[in-house]
Amino acid sequence: MKLATYKDGSRDGQLLVVSRDLRTAHYATGMADTLQQALDDWGFISPQLQDLSQTLNHGKARHAFPFEPRQCMAPLPRAYQWADGSAYINHVELVRASRKSQVPANFYTDPLMYQGGSDDFLGPCDDVVCRSEAYGIDFEAEIAVITGDVPMASSPEQALEGIRLLMLANDVSLRRLIPAELEKGFGFFQSKPATAFSPVAVTPDELGEAWDQGRLHLTMQSTWNGRKVGMCEAGPEMTFHFGQLIAHMCKTRNVRAGSIVGSGTVSNKDWAKGYSCISEKRAQETVQDGQPSTEFMKFGDTIRIEMKGRDGASVFGAIDQTIAPLTAA
Amino acid sequence: MKLATYKDGSRDGQLLVVSRDLRTAHYATGMADTLQQALDDWGFISPQLQDLSQTLNHGKARHAFPFEPRQCMAPLPRAYQWADGSAYINHVELVRASRKSQVPANFYTDPLMYQGGSDDFLGPCDDVVCRSEAYGIDFEAEIAVITGDVPMASSPEQALEGIRLLMLANDVSLRRLIPAELEKGFGFFQSKPATAFSPVAVTPDELGEAWDQGRLHLTMQSTWNGRKVGMCEAGPEMTFHFGQLIAHMCKTRNVRAGSIVGSGTVSNKDWAKGYSCISEKRAQETVQDGQPSTEFMKFGDTIRIEMKGRDGASVFGAIDQTIAPLTAA
Repeated sequence: MKLATYKDGSRDGQLLVVSRDLRTAHYATGMADTLQQALDDWGFISPQLQDLSQTLNHGKARHAFPFEPRQCMAPLPRAYQWADGSAYINHVELVRASRKSQVPANFYTDPLMYQGGSDDFLGPCDDVVCRSEAYGIDFEAEIAVITGDVPMASSPEQALEGIRLLMLANDVSLRRLIPAELEKGFGFFQSKPATAFSPVAVTPDELGEAWDQGRLHLTMQSTWNGRKVGMCEAGPEMTFHFGQLIAHMCKTRNVRAGSIVGSGTVSNKDWAKGYSCISEKRAQETVQDGQPSTEFMKFGDTIRIEMKGRDGASVFGAIDQTIAPLTAA
Repeated sequence: MKLATYKDGSRDGQLLVVSRDLRTAHYATGMADTLQQALDDWGFISPQLQDLSQTLNHGKARHAFPFEPRQCMAPLPRAYQWADGSAYINHVELVRASRKSQVPANFYTDPLMYQGGSDDFLGPCDDVVCRSEAYGIDFEAEIAVITGDVPMASSPEQALEGIRLLMLANDVSLRRLIPAELEKGFGFFQSKPATAFSPVAVTPDELGEAWDQGRLHLTMQSTWNGRKVGMCEAGPEMTFHFGQLIAHMCKTRNVRAGSIVGSGTVSNKDWAKGYSCISEKRAQETVQDGQPSTEFMKFGDTIRIEMKGRDGASVFGAIDQTIAPLTAA
């Protein structure tokens, strides 16, 4: 099934079931008001949502209405955890190559992850509001999963069982703030502003064979200012699958329902497939020409991130955002 | 007023108002079920809680009952954000001195903070469950605040206005996992297991003059295995006050209601005042003797963290935890 959250003036919005073709939707009223509520009691609530989903897909839901992605908040407008991996090692290799540094050997066995802020996510069509273009505004097209409860010390296989939903993410990064911040040694903070998510979150069974043991074998499409810049394969080059990422998280603690886990920027060795963040393009340019020539994003720029199924239809709906300056309240 | 959350089998527990002397409590039923709910609509709900608090303090609340800290979850059992500063630069200076490295100049002007996991907090008397003593289990006695909404680009003074509640934290750290993790460059993850918080969270007005422009001028008492090891002054040596820490957080994003912000380990230049984490004691030993002699915590160890008001009464109740091994579910 496919789930979304509509803006209703509240902090957590209103839970919707959305049809497979993303054309119609139905409020989940009476089952759960919010997605977090459904995740907190998934075993009991998800079968009810699944029933509604079936009715909706058969065109038989009596109070269905046209689905409008612009009315969406993030499926979880705020969450108790947002942990983002860097599971495509090619991304790390490329960025390191551009500054002539080696990838440490343990990066191939021990996933790289950071703890992100999760109190204020963006809807798929919300503006990316930024104080300054000088921060080096970049998009990052990623896959993300939402988990149920995964106890401390779970194996990657056990962790895979804990995946409830998948979605896309735009993990906006402020590139020029990163070096000084990482230099301090405590990870990202100011360089990672609010993350945006796709209109719908989908259960793994919706993905058929494209979802294979923690990897999603579909193409991540990134379109910057109307120009398709990335058609990256998300499956084969994902060094660590989502079960491994979650097992990394729960080595020393429990992971609780509603935790969101990101894949990191989808990245391919074949440069012809383009890029899922500008930083990679700049790294390629640096390797080739000694310096980057592509600029980061400017106010008014747009970024569209989408993934099509093997039938050509949009799976998650599109993230479709504009970069905007912060204006006085 | 003082607020707490009782265990009731649910993920968010049940909100209580607690009397100033921590002897009696009253459910906030009819006002808010959970603390997050109160924070989400603070302007409307807090005056009602304040009324109940007054009635309770006057011994006139009809359904009051004896307050039992062992029934407490963390005031916020899970939160949308946990951001921990390292606001006592002396702590950083000491740890650096023990490894003969300098504190970078910008550490005195730019707060050091990390984004922590917030999906699974511990109650004040819950066991600290750990897979292995070899991880180097350490306590960290800290002050923490809970915020309301603080918009992007707020000044430290504006951010101070956004502080709703204060509490104590035990930011448990796994010291032997830290070096390899920080080496990877993305900050803490596995080395920071679940954090515990004091039984009650208190509004700034409860603290009288001890709360002065974002600093709490009281003594942090840490008692390890029944031995008082720390009597550290929390006020004068806090390099960055809480308004500055929150302003750091909201430089590039909004901080939303229910965000928890930690001070970092309370630390004094005067070693006679003891220590608020074992790591500091070991750093002192290293500076003095060339190597540490105090071991980290073992299974069965206890740690008690408390703060007394100028009247000698416990302000937040005590964090009182035992280190325990992970047992198979």
